[in-house]
Amino acid sequence: MITYERKAFYHETDQMGVIHHSNYFRWLEEARVYFLDELGLSYKHMEEIGIISPVVSIAAEYKKPVKFDEIVVIYIRITKYTGIKLELEYEIRDKATNELMVKAESKHCFIKNNSVISLKREYPEFNNKFLEYVENQDN
Amino acid sequence: MITYERKAFYHETDQMGVIHHSNYFRWLEEARVYFLDELGLSYKHMEEIGIISPVVSIAAEYKKPVKFDEIVVIYIRITKYTGIKLELEYEIRDKATNELMVKAESKHCFIKNNSVISLKREYPEFNNKFLEYVENQDN
Amino acid sequence: MITYERKAFYHETDQMGVIHHSNYFRWLEEARVYFLDELGLSYKHMEEIGIISPVVSIAAEYKKPVKFDEIVVIYIRITKYTGIKLELEYEIRDKATNELMVKAESKHCFIKNNSVISLKREYPEFNNKFLEYVENQDN
Amino acid sequence: MITYERKAFYHETDQMGVIHHSNYFRWLEEARVYFLDELGLSYKHMEEIGIISPVVSIAAEYKKPVKFDEIVVIYIRITKYTGIKLELEYEIRDKATNELMVKAESKHCFIKNNSVISLKREYPEFNNKFLEYVENQDN
Repeated sequence: MITYERKAFYHETDQMGVIHHSNYFRWLEEARVYFLDELGLSYKHMEEIGIISPVVSIAAEYKKPVKFDEIVVIYIRITKYTGIKLELEYEIRDKATNELMVKAESKHCFIKNNSVISLKREYPEFNNKFLEYVENQDN
Repeated sequence: MITYERKAFYHETDQMGVIHHSNYFRWLEEARVYFLDELGLSYKHMEEIGIISPVVSIAAEYKKPVKFDEIVVIYIRITKYTGIKLELEYEIRDKATNELMVKAESKHCFIKNNSVISLKREYPEFNNKFLEYVENQDN
Repeated sequence: MITYERKAFYHETDQMGVIHHSNYFRWLEEARVYFLDELGLSYKHMEEIGIISPVVSIAAEYKKPVKFDEIVVIYIRITKYTGIKLELEYEIRDKATNELMVKAESKHCFIKNNSVISLKREYPEFNNKFLEYVENQDN
Repeated sequence: MITYERKAFYHETDQMGVIHHSNYFRWLEEARVYFLDELGLSYKHMEEIGIISPVVSIAAEYKKPVKFDEIVVIYIRITKYTGIKLELEYEIRDKATNELMVKAESKHCFIKNNSVISLKREYPEFNNKFLEYVENQDN
């Protein structure tokens, strides 16, 4: 399983003394970019050739707040991939205790020239990388 | 209905040329603080007397991206209030066209001295303000 | 004098219980965009015709921290305008007490097609708006 | 010399297609926290015992914009340490090319119970760590 590790920064805290809830969505994005890189699908490269992958919907359940300077591990898993849609789920866990801090999921599509595209049809090499990973991710 | 108006700031955009998806959660928080103020329940005051109201879960569906300098109106509605739990739903609409840009919902509790509290039991004056509003919000 | 008013948002605080020092630079940007609008120089429009005005340098002195829910007034003044360079100074003051919270200054240039341009030569209508304002700002 | 390495995140970009200028101040803070850790002066621990070290002033010159996914190295150097005041300078360099992207400096003090304190007088063990480092940093 691909995991992304991250320290909680001071500028991400709020006056409750914990990480502001909006910042976890930024961590998920970092984890997603890292995840795609690991799959051989650089998001930077995708944007350079004109493909963007916006967030269609996103949701999080906050179990326990992360505090400044704590290290988390983000576990990421593809729950659906159709060539057109990509759905992911995430667990943000405390690195030291393995405790579940945040559970989340996000849905994405792929857009080129302002239209939704099918990676399956238009970018089979990208499509194959997703398919390969999905097949093997639970082994 | 209580609404909160907001201009999209330059520093909230990302390189897709639209507001970064995490920032809408910050707008919802601003709308929530404004909403509580309008109900006569200043969040600043609540924190001063030791009550915090963290986000337990939050979710958003992105319909259309908001762009720099556009003005949005955020509609906020209580969907559940039990004295212990508070659930809200939101619509972020383009002010000029009334188009729905983002639909969202959030769940909250109230915490004092690290324990969940019941406003109903411990802060009846706050509880009454919520109840009054809920009774009348759809008129 | 053109002034920009702003409430301090919860998501802008950090665990010191005050606005995070990096956020004041975002407020200055908001004030700058508002200021240009008031001069009849919409920054949105400038970007649409291909002109960007990046920050070349910026500096701030923090006198007193702003807290959540406080309202500030930002005073902005052109200290230098050459057609090529724009220099601004700012005061962030507490609206209620007029106390000086942050003093700042920024330098900008104008860029089109990756090259620094002279508004004086290439956009005389923009140049004139700056000149007119500078002439009258201290009256 | 102590250096801090950092990837530029997508959520840190703005619609100019580069890192928003306010975010570099957050990177400097991360570098500062890392730097203090390396000196054996955990900022987390300092806050736990009631010492905060706010930014008194900060300034940056932007030489070249950092882009999404680029890796930077932040070089940090103490330019003044009196026991009461701490002054730092920073260089943010592109890791691949060593090019200077941002030059910056910041001034700090130490506060306990709302008063400026002298580490020299009140926390000699912290003071010594600073002094030791300063003595050796240019070797």
